[in-house]
Amino acid sequence: MPHSPVQSANNTPPVILELISYNREQYEKSDTLNIDDLLQKINPDRVNWVNIDGLFDTDITDKLQSHFNLHSLLIDDVLNDQRPKTEEYDDCLYVTLKMLYSINGENIEYEQISFVLGSNYLISFQEKEGDLFNFFRERIRLDLGRVRKMKADYLLYRLIDIIVDNYYNVLDAIGNRIEDIEDNLNENQDEKTFARIQRLKKELIFLRKAVYPLRDALSKLIKDKSEFIDEDNLRFFDDVYDHVVHLLDSLDTYKDLTSSLMDIHINTQNNQLNKVIKVLTIISTIFIPLTFIVGVYGMNFKHFPELEWTYGYPLIWGGMVVLAAVMLMYFRFKKWF
Amino acid sequence: MPHSPVQSANNTPPVILELISYNREQYEKSDTLNIDDLLQKINPDRVNWVNIDGLFDTDITDKLQSHFNLHSLLIDDVLNDQRPKTEEYDDCLYVTLKMLYSINGENIEYEQISFVLGSNYLISFQEKEGDLFNFFRERIRLDLGRVRKMKADYLLYRLIDIIVDNYYNVLDAIGNRIEDIEDNLNENQDEKTFARIQRLKKELIFLRKAVYPLRDALSKLIKDKSEFIDEDNLRFFDDVYDHVVHLLDSLDTYKDLTSSLMDIHINTQNNQLNKVIKVLTIISTIFIPLTFIVGVYGMNFKHFPELEWTYGYPLIWGGMVVLAAVMLMYFRFKKWF
Amino acid sequence: MPHSPVQSANNTPPVILELISYNREQYEKSDTLNIDDLLQKINPDRVNWVNIDGLFDTDITDKLQSHFNLHSLLIDDVLNDQRPKTEEYDDCLYVTLKMLYSINGENIEYEQISFVLGSNYLISFQEKEGDLFNFFRERIRLDLGRVRKMKADYLLYRLIDIIVDNYYNVLDAIGNRIEDIEDNLNENQDEKTFARIQRLKKELIFLRKAVYPLRDALSKLIKDKSEFIDEDNLRFFDDVYDHVVHLLDSLDTYKDLTSSLMDIHINTQNNQLNKVIKVLTIISTIFIPLTFIVGVYGMNFKHFPELEWTYGYPLIWGGMVVLAAVMLMYFRFKKWF
Amino acid sequence: MPHSPVQSANNTPPVILELISYNREQYEKSDTLNIDDLLQKINPDRVNWVNIDGLFDTDITDKLQSHFNLHSLLIDDVLNDQRPKTEEYDDCLYVTLKMLYSINGENIEYEQISFVLGSNYLISFQEKEGDLFNFFRERIRLDLGRVRKMKADYLLYRLIDIIVDNYYNVLDAIGNRIEDIEDNLNENQDEKTFARIQRLKKELIFLRKAVYPLRDALSKLIKDKSEFIDEDNLRFFDDVYDHVVHLLDSLDTYKDLTSSLMDIHINTQNNQLNKVIKVLTIISTIFIPLTFIVGVYGMNFKHFPELEWTYGYPLIWGGMVVLAAVMLMYFRFKKWF
Amino acid sequence: MPHSPVQSANNTPPVILELISYNREQYEKSDTLNIDDLLQKINPDRVNWVNIDGLFDTDITDKLQSHFNLHSLLIDDVLNDQRPKTEEYDDCLYVTLKMLYSINGENIEYEQISFVLGSNYLISFQEKEGDLFNFFRERIRLDLGRVRKMKADYLLYRLIDIIVDNYYNVLDAIGNRIEDIEDNLNENQDEKTFARIQRLKKELIFLRKAVYPLRDALSKLIKDKSEFIDEDNLRFFDDVYDHVVHLLDSLDTYKDLTSSLMDIHINTQNNQLNKVIKVLTIISTIFIPLTFIVGVYGMNFKHFPELEWTYGYPLIWGGMVVLAAVMLMYFRFKKWF
Repeated sequence: MPHSPVQSANNTPPVILELISYNREQYEKSDTLNIDDLLQKINPDRVNWVNIDGLFDTDITDKLQSHFNLHSLLIDDVLNDQRPKTEEYDDCLYVTLKMLYSINGENIEYEQISFVLGSNYLISFQEKEGDLFNFFRERIRLDLGRVRKMKADYLLYRLIDIIVDNYYNVLDAIGNRIEDIEDNLNENQDEKTFARIQRLKKELIFLRKAVYPLRDALSKLIKDKSEFIDEDNLRFFDDVYDHVVHLLDSLDTYKDLTSSLMDIHINTQNNQLNKVIKVLTIISTIFIPLTFIVGVYGMNFKHFPELEWTYGYPLIWGGMVVLAAVMLMYFRFKKWF
Repeated sequence: MPHSPVQSANNTPPVILELISYNREQYEKSDTLNIDDLLQKINPDRVNWVNIDGLFDTDITDKLQSHFNLHSLLIDDVLNDQRPKTEEYDDCLYVTLKMLYSINGENIEYEQISFVLGSNYLISFQEKEGDLFNFFRERIRLDLGRVRKMKADYLLYRLIDIIVDNYYNVLDAIGNRIEDIEDNLNENQDEKTFARIQRLKKELIFLRKAVYPLRDALSKLIKDKSEFIDEDNLRFFDDVYDHVVHLLDSLDTYKDLTSSLMDIHINTQNNQLNKVIKVLTIISTIFIPLTFIVGVYGMNFKHFPELEWTYGYPLIWGGMVVLAAVMLMYFRFKKWF
Repeated sequence: MPHSPVQSANNTPPVILELISYNREQYEKSDTLNIDDLLQKINPDRVNWVNIDGLFDTDITDKLQSHFNLHSLLIDDVLNDQRPKTEEYDDCLYVTLKMLYSINGENIEYEQISFVLGSNYLISFQEKEGDLFNFFRERIRLDLGRVRKMKADYLLYRLIDIIVDNYYNVLDAIGNRIEDIEDNLNENQDEKTFARIQRLKKELIFLRKAVYPLRDALSKLIKDKSEFIDEDNLRFFDDVYDHVVHLLDSLDTYKDLTSSLMDIHINTQNNQLNKVIKVLTIISTIFIPLTFIVGVYGMNFKHFPELEWTYGYPLIWGGMVVLAAVMLMYFRFKKWF
Repeated sequence: MPHSPVQSANNTPPVILELISYNREQYEKSDTLNIDDLLQKINPDRVNWVNIDGLFDTDITDKLQSHFNLHSLLIDDVLNDQRPKTEEYDDCLYVTLKMLYSINGENIEYEQISFVLGSNYLISFQEKEGDLFNFFRERIRLDLGRVRKMKADYLLYRLIDIIVDNYYNVLDAIGNRIEDIEDNLNENQDEKTFARIQRLKKELIFLRKAVYPLRDALSKLIKDKSEFIDEDNLRFFDDVYDHVVHLLDSLDTYKDLTSSLMDIHINTQNNQLNKVIKVLTIISTIFIPLTFIVGVYGMNFKHFPELEWTYGYPLIWGGMVVLAAVMLMYFRFKKWF
Repeated sequence: MPHSPVQSANNTPPVILELISYNREQYEKSDTLNIDDLLQKINPDRVNWVNIDGLFDTDITDKLQSHFNLHSLLIDDVLNDQRPKTEEYDDCLYVTLKMLYSINGENIEYEQISFVLGSNYLISFQEKEGDLFNFFRERIRLDLGRVRKMKADYLLYRLIDIIVDNYYNVLDAIGNRIEDIEDNLNENQDEKTFARIQRLKKELIFLRKAVYPLRDALSKLIKDKSEFIDEDNLRFFDDVYDHVVHLLDSLDTYKDLTSSLMDIHINTQNNQLNKVIKVLTIISTIFIPLTFIVGVYGMNFKHFPELEWTYGYPLIWGGMVVLAAVMLMYFRFKKWF
């Protein structure tokens, strides 16, 4: 069934396992590579956060599956590229979404992160080592905020909230890039501008694809009132939902602004072309008739009275200067330059 | 959790506190900078309007939070940039929207305003000093209209209504700008026109982003039938809702008109280019063959009978005039000029 | 609260009052300018149609308000520009929509008309004197059709139906204009065509804005099953609703046809430009090389064998004619003319 | 109330009446022009199919109305141009849709057909003589298929199904035209192509207008579970509904393909223009400098050393040939030809 | 009723029948061309998968219809081109969708496949021999996975899942083609690029038409909770539904990317045209005035002082070189080259 696995089978890095287990009084963090040890350390009286970086070890997934009694489809979903969604199973709640990495909003990378929430545990599956949660791990350890006083559902909320807040950073960086391009559009326009607008457009397309389904996923989560989320805590997920809707509004706005940039770019290009053609027309329209005139007096007719005139040459010059001046005035009047 | 605070932390102006407390018989206004004094002056038998300009004083927000028993998420929402929304909490109703400032519909500035409505109080959080409510404060003091006879929910309605009515002013100014550009399009078209249309388009994009969510927010407020709003007064919010829908219709109309302006602009530009190219073609098409003809008679062949003819030169002139006239008639017939 | 009054305060024409009061046996029409007299003449046993042309007399609205016990928001809505809507109050049903005036579908004027339907009365508020109902007034007087046998709700239906039927006339006129422009597009295309298409587009935008909300308003009226409309008569409003939906379909069709006209116009323009450029290219491509050739034999080299040849001049002519013919054949082959 | 009658009042052809009355054992067909005779022949124990071609005889409609107890609005709807719809009345079910006539999918003609279904009768109102049902009449007579075993509701289904199946023929013909144009686009492109695409687009617009509302009409028919349609037979209408949705999918696909054709056409035109301009540029760029060179040696300066050189003339020729060759190579390198 | 049969009546290949009948312990596969034998071999205690390649044998369909008690509309649907849909009958569940064949995402072929699911049988109707199920047949035989432990509904799920997974392969191939074109766009742009983009666009249009209705079909299947699908197994169909929604997201993304490609193509074309016109303008603008100058000194006036000057010729050359240099610098400054 796996159609496009989130990880290629070869050159898989080793899977990294981590367990943070806490309650109001106690806190314990274990970094271990052995799944059996980890499962033994799980303490049903505490909140157990099992974090797994790198997914492709069937031994680990099998043991997790049997220990937490996970559905085979859930494991399939964890291992394959998914649209952000939430799904309620008998023994747990499954949530998957995309984690974004980006410097300055360029070359955004997407990592799929899946959460399995049980009554006293939260498993997070990540594709690669490294995430956005280090500051938050520190806060748990130091017992800052209310996380230590709450259950696993609050932990899930905080992790999703951190991921969604990071979307804002990416979006702000994109906003800056839009303003940047806009400033350049008026100054010096070159071919790179078009490429930059196109890249922006493409990134917005992919961003929307990653964020849009999250809205429905969260809305479903809130409406279904899963038994794994305390009803008082639904308000927190409601808040994240509002943030996602706000994000989508901003994405739409950025999409509109980007297509405005395209319009401006095209208009600038057309203006340039018009100017070039006007230059061509002005020069041609002035000199082609003049060249005709001097051609006339270059003819070799035997009987050619003007050529004999004493002031023929200066008269011709005078006539040509007047003609050119009239034409220039005409173009000026037409606002061609 | 704060992702993009509505105010930057440094150079914050001092927070301004104001309390207007009234009922049918009594009216008292206190301008004070001390939150403790203000909270003491709150009179549960009256409607208490607490207005706060400038938000970033944790001391004040903490005391408000504990005094009115506000949810921490509510305080988060007040302090950060939000999509317009309404949210019902156990002890209060939260409404946030955007207040607009603009002269002639240009350079519209957006200020977030949040309302917290309790049974006998209304707190309004503004980002900056100065608002649209001065005339209305006067009306309360002088006991004009029915505000003094009503509860805090009516006060909330009036404030939202004043903000929404101001949207109309902004929109009317934009309507005037559209007509203004349209008049100019036919007269003298220059590069600034395009920039003006683009600026208009951008302002409409941002306006829509600010107004559109307000429709859903108000609709939710009306449907949820919050306990903090008297059911008889829901009709007033219904009226504001109708205004917002009307506004959105107008925004759509303006968007269509603006894209019509773009079409007209582009068409005018193309027409100009066509005219320039026609001028080039007419001049070239007439003079290039003539120049060829005079070139012929400028050749230096020894045996060149025409050159010897007595009337060669005037004959050539005649031929060329006829040729030019025929061409001009052709172009005239083709309606090129 | 009034944000954009439907009438400006100065130069208001006098308000015109009219009362038509009828039942199966009796009919009485009173044209009077005095509101008190009118209110006294209202006969609770008949259907009373109070028609008011011109709105800005607070004395009249105040007396109507107190006599019929109207809500203050209703009076506000009557006096200000509204989106078409229906609203049910405790004592009456409020309906507002737009009445259209137009000759040949050009320069469509919009007048807001508001209806207040009570159990035995219908008040119609119009902005200006003059309406579409004169034929219908005659039908009431002569007891044609079934209106005299029915209640005020049927009267409301007939008035709305007359207004909506008039939309069809306006739309048919617009349909004719579209066909008219289409015929012209193929014949003689000038700059006015574009302006005509744009005007059409603009009129469709405004028409849609006036008609579209009416669909929802009528749908709400039908679904809400107001107590002021007999359930048997809902079918009539259903019929008007169908007409409005049909109208909106036609509006969409016309919008598509208009954008087709734009496409045709742009294509014709491009074709013209292409032809102009082809003429330029043909003439230039033929004569520029020929001019070069005659230029060659206009050089003044001392040693220039061809110039001495007896048949040099005719040979050159022959060569140039062949060259021009080859080029013309090439362009013909390429279907440039 | 009639706003746009489906038939003009003058030059109305005579109304044609037809009655087919059948049950499992009996079959009787009467072609008669007298409405009274027809109504007398109606046999309540059989299925009575009354078919009326041409509508504008108030005598007939009045008698039908009183005999079958039809609502006045129903008769209005039959006589006027309607959006496809279904409407349930107390004594009957009303369905109206469009019947299409077309040869090769060109010049599609639309005829409104209305059905009134009672418990034991079906009235079909057609605008003109001639329809798509002749084969089916034969099938009833010969007792083919199950129609003779079923009630009037099945008859209605079969007639609608025949009309909808004919839509497929029209659509297939349009599909062929699209392929036809596409083939031509690559071969020889002329101005007619554009006109053909536009005509196609227009026909798709009108087709959609005729078919789209039918979907909603059928959906309403199925959901409302009218008493005049046996619940077992709803499945047949469900099948027609599926066909209509399939048709709309195809219409959308054709619309997309047509706009693709437009893109191809425009691209071909632009390519042609680009080629023309390249020819102009190549010829001009090669010969204008050469003409300048020969012009130089056509000057009449007294002191002009080159003119005296013995090999001046061939040298110049050589130089010009080299220059032209270099330019040609440059254009070749730039892939201009 | 058949409007566009999925197979033409002539040159129909022979119909191929196949029966796979299995349960947890037993497995039997029969390839036979005789429908009677096949029907006899059906074992009500096992899952019976009847596969039929090629449809147009009325004898077979009649026997299947009577044996499984199938509705006549169902058989109609199997034999004709259908929109993907699911339909529940009294004795079975009907599902139809499209199976895709493609090499590298080019020339996608669509084959309609219909499934009829009963309590202990699944009939699959295919248009042609050959399908995507050979690997899966092997898995059934070898009792891999859980298919042998499950009922016919799971078999249906697996077959649909295999078809949908194959959509991913087609889509990935299309994704590769998009990237391929994008790479080429920047390198060497020719007329084929445009044709490739158009073909891509067309394939996306048809793909969407095939996949989009499947979403609704599956959603209906899941919501209706058919009695032929075990409620526990609905989760599997839910999973396929998620895949289809994901596919549609990707299709939308690809559509956006393709229209981006078009924008890039058009921009590149315009850039090229601009460059060609700039070359024309530069050459013309430099040489046309120079040609005029040398024309001046080619005039044959008797009184022409400059011609007598000793350094006239070199001076003119100097002047012309300066003029050309100034112009080149101007164009350089304007960034024309």
